[in-house]
Amino acid sequence: MKTIKYPARSEWAELLKRPVFETVSLQQKVAGILQEIAQNGDSAVKKFTEQFDKVKLDDLLVSDSEFAEANDLVDEELKKAIQIAKQNIQKFHEAQWEKTVEVETMEGVKCWRKSVPIEKVGLYIPGGTAPLFSTLLMLGVPAQIAGCQEIVLCTPPQKDGKVNPVILFTANLLGIKSLYKIGGVQAVGAMAFGTETVPKVYKIFGPGNQYVTAAKQYVSQLNTAIDMPAGPSEVAVMADEACNPAFVASDLLSQAEHGEDSQVVLVTYTESILDPIQQEVEKQLAKLPRREFAKKALENSQMILVKDETEMLDMINEYAPEHLIIATKNYLEQGNRIRNAGSIFLGNYTPESAGDYASGTNHTLPTNGHARTYSGVSLDSFIKKITFQEITKVGIKNIGNVIERMAEAELLEAHKNAVTLRLESLEK
Amino acid sequence: MKTIKYPARSEWAELLKRPVFETVSLQQKVAGILQEIAQNGDSAVKKFTEQFDKVKLDDLLVSDSEFAEANDLVDEELKKAIQIAKQNIQKFHEAQWEKTVEVETMEGVKCWRKSVPIEKVGLYIPGGTAPLFSTLLMLGVPAQIAGCQEIVLCTPPQKDGKVNPVILFTANLLGIKSLYKIGGVQAVGAMAFGTETVPKVYKIFGPGNQYVTAAKQYVSQLNTAIDMPAGPSEVAVMADEACNPAFVASDLLSQAEHGEDSQVVLVTYTESILDPIQQEVEKQLAKLPRREFAKKALENSQMILVKDETEMLDMINEYAPEHLIIATKNYLEQGNRIRNAGSIFLGNYTPESAGDYASGTNHTLPTNGHARTYSGVSLDSFIKKITFQEITKVGIKNIGNVIERMAEAELLEAHKNAVTLRLESLEK
Repeated sequence: MKTIKYPARSEWAELLKRPVFETVSLQQKVAGILQEIAQNGDSAVKKFTEQFDKVKLDDLLVSDSEFAEANDLVDEELKKAIQIAKQNIQKFHEAQWEKTVEVETMEGVKCWRKSVPIEKVGLYIPGGTAPLFSTLLMLGVPAQIAGCQEIVLCTPPQKDGKVNPVILFTANLLGIKSLYKIGGVQAVGAMAFGTETVPKVYKIFGPGNQYVTAAKQYVSQLNTAIDMPAGPSEVAVMADEACNPAFVASDLLSQAEHGEDSQVVLVTYTESILDPIQQEVEKQLAKLPRREFAKKALENSQMILVKDETEMLDMINEYAPEHLIIATKNYLEQGNRIRNAGSIFLGNYTPESAGDYASGTNHTLPTNGHARTYSGVSLDSFIKKITFQEITKVGIKNIGNVIERMAEAELLEAHKNAVTLRLESLEK
Repeated sequence: MKTIKYPARSEWAELLKRPVFETVSLQQKVAGILQEIAQNGDSAVKKFTEQFDKVKLDDLLVSDSEFAEANDLVDEELKKAIQIAKQNIQKFHEAQWEKTVEVETMEGVKCWRKSVPIEKVGLYIPGGTAPLFSTLLMLGVPAQIAGCQEIVLCTPPQKDGKVNPVILFTANLLGIKSLYKIGGVQAVGAMAFGTETVPKVYKIFGPGNQYVTAAKQYVSQLNTAIDMPAGPSEVAVMADEACNPAFVASDLLSQAEHGEDSQVVLVTYTESILDPIQQEVEKQLAKLPRREFAKKALENSQMILVKDETEMLDMINEYAPEHLIIATKNYLEQGNRIRNAGSIFLGNYTPESAGDYASGTNHTLPTNGHARTYSGVSLDSFIKKITFQEITKVGIKNIGNVIERMAEAELLEAHKNAVTLRLESLEK
């Protein structure tokens, strides 16, 4: 990791710059695939699956027997771990239900909001080197709690034409049966437009490579909502003398092992911790199976030494990290001064991996500075809030003139008239 | 209005189709303007203001004396109306604050969410035939409640280089002083990129014509969030024998007067109300100042007669209207069966204009079918929710193995190691 000492504030923006995640150049290629899927449905999906995943499939839908088979293939200890994680995620997300509160803004004018599930949602779980069953929990659990009527799941087939058994086990645990062996751009297209076998959904969730991201961007310009804009994963660590250098190093490496483009930043005003952390990083790195990925990510990563606590907090707020670990003495108080971050991990015994898997919080979080405006995935991502209002005769008498004056001033006579007619009917 | 009787379900999709709102074709033109603003800042903004608004401005920022002057120009009764509307909007949106709830998912594993304001937001209020001060209330009030540190407001200058006094009065009432005389694409560009005088913001809100919409779409692909995708305004009315045909007609016309592309739909299973409503529409239309707009909108509008209550509800849910008026006997029960709508107006004395102006609910709502996935603007639009977690030594002992098993199964050794190191340190 590079060490930067006491950079001037004017240099921060350059220092904290993320690599540009270029999807525009992919748009044309991706658009071509999507358009073909919109037109030719399943046959196009199967064609691209053969082309990209090197698998020829007759059925895109996972069968009951495949689910049953998978159940026997998953290690019992792992099953138990997944069940516990599911319970925790469930507890945390269930607490996010908003109770309907009726507000009487004036006598006879009642307004409220009601949470209503998005009817049809699509979850995309990438394949690749490892089956991301944890992401399935993070998306499937809140979708279930929200009460989405149709939950469609797509994940790429393995070379043998099957789906990874842990994904099948987890889907089954969540009661998700609409599971299709479709990967990448094809999955996004199938769910956005619908095919003969894949139902069209209203909103698509889930991570993926830059092709998937470009495909999600594309359909979001048409009529399908998406969870959030995506970029490479990031962690920032704020540390001081209260930190444990070995723990900090392990957290930095957790992020670095995701891939070369992972973003890892340490910010501190305690110079004495820099060397111990650097040494621990090197020691631990040597033992990692994914050390090649991690090494490349670390080459672009930095340990930044700043003047004081204020600069430390300001720099983090400017960076707006996806994950923020606060390994300091005053972590709670400092955590409350953070204005931009996706998820915050407090103290020495709260590694990022807790939130990645099992503590209960969601791991689908805003990257690339989007934490300035976006929240991570939550129950809210699977519902919308419809506003209601009910005005009585007394109510319209109370508020009617206000509406009339304002409508008149905006030159909207018919808006005014809708009130005037009602008021006149009550005078009779 | 066209009357369609008993259409087959297979025809609904075609019947309820919205006109395609083409922004892609504008993208190039808009992108050129935006890029120039990104590069040349104020001078580009002033150049385009001269070109499009036919006004040459020295200062983009509204001065204190302009605010003071405006205060004298606004009618006292209108001022009072705006103040009452503001209070109601405030009451309804203040009730949307989510209390932080700490959830202990396992012993020693505490998780919570905290609402944090988006630091810098930009509000766009279009000019045009009328000053939309109501939209300023709808965006400014929740931005204030959220506690956004910087609220930037842009609105086009009038031909005389000034801003409409009612807009100035309303901004002043909200305590918004960063008000710039910038319209259309220029406003979006100035707020997205920042200029010498206009601060860069993180999220842009507000309606506008298709150029503004295209500009918002463009910057949303870069790094600025936007409130929601926009389309022409819509109302659907569900009515039965309990409705008042004159009231229903006035509501249909309120929507129609917005512009030619307004969407107006009536759905009922009560044939006898069709003629009276049609007659009332014609009678009221004749007296409207904006009757030419309204007439054109009505030509594309429809009254649809369906078989029964179920079909009525199903059709509305398929259409997903921005505004839904339920003028029926069982409006409350039927309202609870609606799954897709932006805002619902219940009963005979709740005109859409109440929500447009003063009842307290927000009038910035999802159009074009987006009500299937989006909520209207609310306090949530101006905040993000950061998740926090704090795990104690006991907590990591409780949850550690679960994380280790899952990380291992996802082949993420460093994620596992972050836990293993902590568990080992506690065994010593």
